[in-house]
Amino acid sequence: MKAAIVTVGDELLTGDTADSNATWLAGRLDERGVAVERITTVPDRVADIARVVNEFRAEYDAVIVTGGIGPTHDDVTMEGVAAAFGRRLTRNEEALDWLLEHGGYAAGDLTDGTTKLPEGARPLNNEVGVAPGCVLESVYVFPGVPAEMEAMFEGVASEFSGRVTYTATVEAAEPESTLIDRLAAVREEFEVSVGSYPGEHVRVKLTAGDEGEAERAAAWLRERVEPAE
Amino acid sequence: MKAAIVTVGDELLTGDTADSNATWLAGRLDERGVAVERITTVPDRVADIARVVNEFRAEYDAVIVTGGIGPTHDDVTMEGVAAAFGRRLTRNEEALDWLLEHGGYAAGDLTDGTTKLPEGARPLNNEVGVAPGCVLESVYVFPGVPAEMEAMFEGVASEFSGRVTYTATVEAAEPESTLIDRLAAVREEFEVSVGSYPGEHVRVKLTAGDEGEAERAAAWLRERVEPAE
Repeated sequence: MKAAIVTVGDELLTGDTADSNATWLAGRLDERGVAVERITTVPDRVADIARVVNEFRAEYDAVIVTGGIGPTHDDVTMEGVAAAFGRRLTRNEEALDWLLEHGGYAAGDLTDGTTKLPEGARPLNNEVGVAPGCVLESVYVFPGVPAEMEAMFEGVASEFSGRVTYTATVEAAEPESTLIDRLAAVREEFEVSVGSYPGEHVRVKLTAGDEGEAERAAAWLRERVEPAE
Repeated sequence: MKAAIVTVGDELLTGDTADSNATWLAGRLDERGVAVERITTVPDRVADIARVVNEFRAEYDAVIVTGGIGPTHDDVTMEGVAAAFGRRLTRNEEALDWLLEHGGYAAGDLTDGTTKLPEGARPLNNEVGVAPGCVLESVYVFPGVPAEMEAMFEGVASEFSGRVTYTATVEAAEPESTLIDRLAAVREEFEVSVGSYPGEHVRVKLTAGDEGEAERAAAWLRERVEPAE
């Protein structure tokens, strides 16, 4: 399963807020064996959301959209997703009933913005906040508040799955350029893909379809590099 | 000026690394009045990099690409950018000369991967690390190591400019949905755009082309909401 993540919000594009939702979702999807191939941040604008959602749903098995759902004028994600599918936003009776029953709200307390979903969408209850999310075909829409997003993702996590991979990491206290021959050799010797991330030390990440293979490759490489502290 | 940011790296798509470079760049560009309209993360794959760079350079005034430059097999950003322009990667003599003079390297120490840039690119010296960046028309390529990226950006920061905006923030201790009428009113009364970000409290961000206007709108709103501590 290949997936893309779309995070919505002007505050992400001005650097006011770090996109921790994307990092969290990418980690959880990776744990479930789903390959995330794009993470894209778009402004709070209907046309931008619709365009990116449409492009990604044509290309990936699942698209997760977070942020910009709720009652205020800058919450336009549901409108963008509806536009991507050429559907209308309508009051979702199932979402409304759930909120009236579980949220302790009266019908008059809930603004239109909170209970309107794209026509035909399956609502996702918000156990932590108010605004419901939804699923439309392969597109999942979650809130932007991290605790709400995380709880909603966990409720549907079983719908995301793929081939789980295993990773092992080796830290080397050498310049990255001197490691090139051994990185080539470990790829030759073992069934692994190799990522190399420079920093204070070089972190080499070995990924395999089999846990033993990743560990064997790491052990082999550890014997051949200058170990970091 | 409208800009897009492309961050390259499998480690960002598995949630191993938070995309702090995108947040930093978005903040610095915003300070300079540049509107960042997209942030996209792509894998370490030539075709994906080429495709996104091409799409963005057709649409935005500037594209900043970070990550995946350097000597190892997974550093394919320069190849992706070259492919986007239909150019070859060639050894850049200017970049090489600078490294020999300033880096204390001998020519034999430097791998091809480090000194090959897209044909015709303007090299950007790396004052903090080794691998040079480059500029090709409107596309800027920076390293992924934050200190190297930040130093390289500052060296060309004056090439990014736009209409500077001013923001003021109001924190309200009310549910977001109850604020809707006053958020509409402040947009009516003042020349501001209004963002509303729920969290423990609701943070309302007022943005104007004029500092006084943003402050006046904030003062007006502060008198009309339940103040947060």
